[in-house]
Amino acid sequence: MDEPRWLDDREARVWHAYLDVHRELHGALERQLVRDSGLSLADYSVLVPLSEAPDGLIRARELGAKVGWERSRLSHQIGRMEKRGLVAREECPEDARGSMVRLTPAGRAAIGAAAPGHVETVRRYLFDVLSEEESDVLGRAFARVLRRLGADRDEGRA
Amino acid sequence: MDEPRWLDDREARVWHAYLDVHRELHGALERQLVRDSGLSLADYSVLVPLSEAPDGLIRARELGAKVGWERSRLSHQIGRMEKRGLVAREECPEDARGSMVRLTPAGRAAIGAAAPGHVETVRRYLFDVLSEEESDVLGRAFARVLRRLGADRDEGRA
Repeated sequence: MDEPRWLDDREARVWHAYLDVHRELHGALERQLVRDSGLSLADYSVLVPLSEAPDGLIRARELGAKVGWERSRLSHQIGRMEKRGLVAREECPEDARGSMVRLTPAGRAAIGAAAPGHVETVRRYLFDVLSEEESDVLGRAFARVLRRLGADRDEGRA
Repeated sequence: MDEPRWLDDREARVWHAYLDVHRELHGALERQLVRDSGLSLADYSVLVPLSEAPDGLIRARELGAKVGWERSRLSHQIGRMEKRGLVAREECPEDARGSMVRLTPAGRAAIGAAAPGHVETVRRYLFDVLSEEESDVLGRAFARVLRRLGADRDEGRA
């Protein structure tokens, strides 16, 4: 690699603000969920795609991609949620090696009860604080970042 | 709570874009670090504040606050890094119950070797893709989000 292209002061400020927002927002969302619903943010992240899937049923592999976790992390998380009755593992009818994860009625009730407070917290820290213009700029900027990440992933670079 | 203030379509798009960026960017940064430096993003997150501290020495409690992890997660991570010779645990001279974490010469060499590629990756997905105006808007917006999070934390609300 050539001479490193270090971040200048302005870029470093933006990057550290991004890291700080992520850390602090994650912490605040986690504390609100645990306090008001007894769910962790990891539980919630798993329940969302399940609650949106037809019949509350998703292949484990697809669920892993949606939450962005490796297989072992997903497997531990699903195991913990299964013990608490929030999800159930099932075999995949079309693929003996694949497994499916199903949202239980208790899991659906849990996310239904947790969602209003969670969304209120997202609103409090994000949309109540940002102007409409700022949130539009963020949306467009994030979409462009995602396209670059997706393009590199498709080329096997990232 | 009153009627939930659900996100409208525009807000939901921005929020999901934020979550997607975080997940995909985290994944890309992690893969680059592991591939090019044999460090995880968690290793890197711990090495940064240590490399910036006087004598490479920080109280464990302060380090935990800087990376935003609970005590048990930090303790496991430090234990793994200690086995690899990147950090060393020391007793705190002023507080028998507190412990300190010190960056070893090997740890300093590891972050020195990893930093250029990591920063290049941050630049590739963020600053090469965003205009200067967009990154200024992001910086200002994130600063406001952090102020709200900090104010709530000070009041014991968040």
